Amino acid sequence: MFNEITIIGPGLIGASLGLAIKSNKLCKTIVGIDRSVKNLEDAFRINAIDKRRKIIDGRIQKSSIIFICTPVSTIDKIINEISLYSNKEQVISDVGSVKNIFKKKTLNLNEVKFSLVPGHPIAGTEHSGAINSQRNLFRDKWCILTPLNRNKRSIKMISEIWKNIGMKISIMQPSEHDKIMSMTSHLPHLIAFTIVGTAFNLNIKKKNELINFAAGGFKDFTRIGSSDPKMWTDIFLENKNFLKETLELFLRDIKKFKYFIETNQYDEIFNLLKRTKEIRKSIIKKKI
Amino acid sequence: MFNEITIIGPGLIGASLGLAIKSNKLCKTIVGIDRSVKNLEDAFRINAIDKRRKIIDGRIQKSSIIFICTPVSTIDKIINEISLYSNKEQVISDVGSVKNIFKKKTLNLNEVKFSLVPGHPIAGTEHSGAINSQRNLFRDKWCILTPLNRNKRSIKMISEIWKNIGMKISIMQPSEHDKIMSMTSHLPHLIAFTIVGTAFNLNIKKKNELINFAAGGFKDFTRIGSSDPKMWTDIFLENKNFLKETLELFLRDIKKFKYFIETNQYDEIFNLLKRTKEIRKSIIKKKI
Repeated sequence: MFNEITIIGPGLIGASLGLAIKSNKLCKTIVGIDRSVKNLEDAFRINAIDKRRKIIDGRIQKSSIIFICTPVSTIDKIINEISLYSNKEQVISDVGSVKNIFKKKTLNLNEVKFSLVPGHPIAGTEHSGAINSQRNLFRDKWCILTPLNRNKRSIKMISEIWKNIGMKISIMQPSEHDKIMSMTSHLPHLIAFTIVGTAFNLNIKKKNELINFAAGGFKDFTRIGSSDPKMWTDIFLENKNFLKETLELFLRDIKKFKYFIETNQYDEIFNLLKRTKEIRKSIIKKKI
Repeated sequence: MFNEITIIGPGLIGASLGLAIKSNKLCKTIVGIDRSVKNLEDAFRINAIDKRRKIIDGRIQKSSIIFICTPVSTIDKIINEISLYSNKEQVISDVGSVKNIFKKKTLNLNEVKFSLVPGHPIAGTEHSGAINSQRNLFRDKWCILTPLNRNKRSIKMISEIWKNIGMKISIMQPSEHDKIMSMTSHLPHLIAFTIVGTAFNLNIKKKNELINFAAGGFKDFTRIGSSDPKMWTDIFLENKNFLKETLELFLRDIKKFKYFIETNQYDEIFNLLKRTKEIRKSIIKKKI
């Protein structure tokens, strides 16, 4: 059991982490730091954090672990702020959806001013803020860790926290993580955000009734497409290179599909669809 | 209460319709016609149909209503077969996902050899066959009817059936239906089928674990992408023109998005995402 853990940005993920840590009795005191008074108060009121702070200062020295749960574009800067006060026994982790985001300066401070173990719990909903947090958000989901060196003690500390609150751990290179996520998460979100706009621009009489006539597919898309704009703008830009590559593969495949439709190639389309069904079956059999 | 209704192709939709009609006591006898012995036996065993036939013949004259629940590419041909035996008092309807599919010959027979009221109950799952049918599949969903003329009696007969089993009715032009569906159903399916293949071609070490690291978005896509290949090949080809148009609008929007990412246009991306969230909110407020 830790004496103190700090959660910077106790929003949907941060406050859910606080709730999970507390309900599993992994820590005596959880400090929440947030510039948004509203979110900080929400997190405090629902008991996701025990102490409220608006700024990072010397008091952060008391925390064994500091989780940064803010939008990805802010993480590197926040680590630099923490480094003014921290020491190498303190472990810093994060929950960002992109992992290859650290500047050289930050990497040089690692194991000198702190021990950095970046992480990404693959959990969430389209809602944001402490107000939507859930104690069991992480249960039975996967958490990817992308440690920057072999500091076993730090890796173990972060792994144990996530395992104790129900997650399965996978360790990989930051760039492997970013490539996988560009496909399984960032591209689907980009598509979902896009298609809602495309639909709204469609020239039809019953535009306002469009959602009535949407079966599973489109409703899922609009749900995903209602995720937090700030968070997702950050993710798209921080993972720009892999996302661009993945998007180009997708566009190539969809143009091929379009060509098959335009040229009435029944067998090509049928085989493509059949293959998709088989891929899904093989994936599902292995893992779910 | 009708004496006899025929369901041609008692698969997922047809057998669910049979179950719903029977549990609401709307008809004494339901005849199922299917060339697939396996599916016909399944439908009979679960009591979705009372009589089993492999072919369309003179006996079909006894049915007040004939629902065609086969893949869209077969519907027009089946109507022509029925017309050899039917009379203008008999109402033919269907459940196809594309509505502008009737040949001139068929339209000329309408109100002479039968009364045609095309329909599309927007309900279903990614599973197919009588074996997966559900009595409540249609409850609280929308059914679109695209009547070809003003035969009030026939329209009322078909409307009442769907209303009695829990559906809300919307009446529109076939081309309006096909345009809306190209956006809310056909394009999302085309994307889902494509992206599963794109993902599987990705050059990563942990390919078989890909699904573990997929949050909501991608899992939804693989689920949709496992829908019946034959049914969807038909839909894509039968609604080729609208689908092509909708796909081009989507590609234009996604390329714009890609350009914003490549050129680091934070504000443009943020505004685009924010607008999507607002569109969703306005749609949801109105209708769900």
